[in-house]
This record gives sequence, structure tokens and C-alpha cells, in this order.
Amino acid sequence: MNLRETEISNKPVFEGRLIDLNVETISLPNGKTATREIVKHPDASAAIAINDEKKMLLVKQWREPIKQLTLEIPAGLIDETDASPLDAMKRELNEEGGYKAEYWEKVSEFYTSVGFCDEKIHLFYCDTLSKIEHKRPLDEDEFLTQEWYSLPELKQLIASGKIMDAKTVMAITFWENMILTGNQSND
Amino acid sequence: MNLRETEISNKPVFEGRLIDLNVETISLPNGKTATREIVKHPDASAAIAINDEKKMLLVKQWREPIKQLTLEIPAGLIDETDASPLDAMKRELNEEGGYKAEYWEKVSEFYTSVGFCDEKIHLFYCDTLSKIEHKRPLDEDEFLTQEWYSLPELKQLIASGKIMDAKTVMAITFWENMILTGNQSND
Repeated sequence: MNLRETEISNKPVFEGRLIDLNVETISLPNGKTATREIVKHPDASAAIAINDEKKMLLVKQWREPIKQLTLEIPAGLIDETDASPLDAMKRELNEEGGYKAEYWEKVSEFYTSVGFCDEKIHLFYCDTLSKIEHKRPLDEDEFLTQEWYSLPELKQLIASGKIMDAKTVMAITFWENMILTGNQSND
Repeated sequence: MNLRETEISNKPVFEGRLIDLNVETISLPNGKTATREIVKHPDASAAIAINDEKKMLLVKQWREPIKQLTLEIPAGLIDETDASPLDAMKRELNEEGGYKAEYWEKVSEFYTSVGFCDEKIHLFYCDTLSKIEHKRPLDEDEFLTQEWYSLPELKQLIASGKIMDAKTVMAITFWENMILTGNQSND
């Protein structure tokens, strides 16, 4: 069965600081036409960062789209100064956490919401963390604090609805999986 | 530390079929102003649906935002005819799969991309599936096929980059954890 949609035309609707929005007219597999509203978003990196006490680093910050404080794993956009997604994550761990890590591992990469958006996140695992003496500053419009949680605490925070960010729920599930299968580098 | 951002004004930029876009001007914790580009998206339900052969149901469909065929767990928007997120998921499992399930469990709920969007997904687990004789039709602009995969096959599909949808990667990791911890209803 042919499932492919074919682009007929593409109308730019908005070009912003973070995202762009286009409305595409497409041809459906049955030959009819339809529209697709598509958000263009830069790719990002995120990390499961585990300290020597087996606690995960989370950052607390205000998220205006849901008008709530969130607890999230450190993450950030990949910018033109970053040589790679890993390089971007090392910069973010410095900026958001003030840490560097000796051990890094790629965990996964995924699209956050393929129905309307092209945003891709590169997810890493790191441990053997150490504090950086002269950490890089946060972005001008970025305000956050750090917290550290054990796996049982993280599972409780998910169960109670305190952690509701998809990449963070995924990170915790991955980390539990690594522990259950004994696949953890710093054991 | 006060992390809260406060809305000063809100400019509607686009009202679409699926999403709306607003640009908000906010007051930062330090009193300066900044803008936030915010996409409004309806909530959705998704399901880990496991058959009696311990295989997971995936649907293959074209996703124009990334111009690729994807493999995803069954999912869909919650609409005004649905009494609840679970009710929406039962309808989607009928429409996208042609199945009903006897056993249902809520797994998690999460925001897909809190940096710019308010989309929330309600994730369920179900098993004890049976085919529905008269299945509901798909949406007019929806074309998809069904596939069933075992856990080792799913892990291989993630490793090879064939599965890159966030909710589906999360669903597979959750299911693996359920199996690893022996917490599976149909064992």
C-alpha cells in the first residue's frame, strides 16, 4: 500500500526566533489534497547525567507554554558553534549544571512530535561528573535551579505528576532499564 | 529563587486546523522582558497494545513534517466526542487497529515538548486484544498499515533508526521495564 504524501505547495506563515510555521498543501495517497501545519524547530541535545551517589541531575525552570515549573533533564538547542550533538550537550551540561563528565554514551535519538513538528532530540548518558571551576553563563532569558534525585525518588515524582516532561520521563525509564539489566558503566 | 515568568501580552499569529500559534511577551524573573513562541495543540492518547503472542502493535504512516514513513504506537487526538483520554484511546485502537482490549492500565502522561508547545499525551497499556467485526473508518486524510513486533525486534528497530518517534521509543522502554520487573498482566 502506498502511504506517501507529496508536497504540492508550501506557504510560510511565521518566522520566529525559535520556530517557523508553514502550511503545506499535499497530495494524499488516494489523490485527494489536504493541508498539513508544520512547525520547524532546531534539533536539541539532552542528557541523563548521574553523579557518584547515583542521583540524576534535573533542572527546575518555568515553562510558559504550560504555565508551570517543570523538572527536566539538562537539555538545549544545538547551535552553529557546536561541532556535534555531543559537543552541544557538553556545553549545556556546563551552562545549566556547571559540570563536566568523563564518561559519555549515546542513548537514542527521536522526534518529539512527528504529527506537526520536525524537532529531533539526541539523548546521551553521562557519569563520572566533576564541578567546573568557571562555568559558562546561562542564556540571557534562562533562569533555572538544579536538583538531584535517586531512581526511587524520580519514580515517585512521575507517579505524583511532578515530572511530566516527555524526554525526562523517557530518560528515567531508560536509566531504570540500564540498572535492571546491569548495563551501567559506573557500577 | 523566583523562576516564574509573567505574561504581559499575547499576540495570536495563526489559527489552524490542528494548531494555533501565539507570541507572548513575558516578564522574566529579573524584571526584563522577552518573547515566547507558543504552539497550542490538542491533547492526545497513545497505547502500548500487546497481543497474545507478546507482540506490540505499530502503525506505519507518512509524516510530512519529517518527510518519512514512521513506525508508531497507535495514537490520536482526544476530541469532543470522547468522554475521557481512555475513551479516546479505545476509539483510536478501533479506528487504527480494528481491535478492542479487555485489560487497560494507565502508564503515564507527559508534555511532548514543553519549550514551545502545550501538547499532552496520555499513555496507556492494554492487552487481551480481539478483532472487531465492524471497525470504525480512519479519518479522511489518514492512511496507515499495521505491523506487529516482538520486544527484540523493536529494540533492533530503535538501534537501526527505523523507530524514531519519541512516544514509541518511550512505549518500548516502558514495556521492556514491565517485562524485566515481571509486572505484566497477561503472563
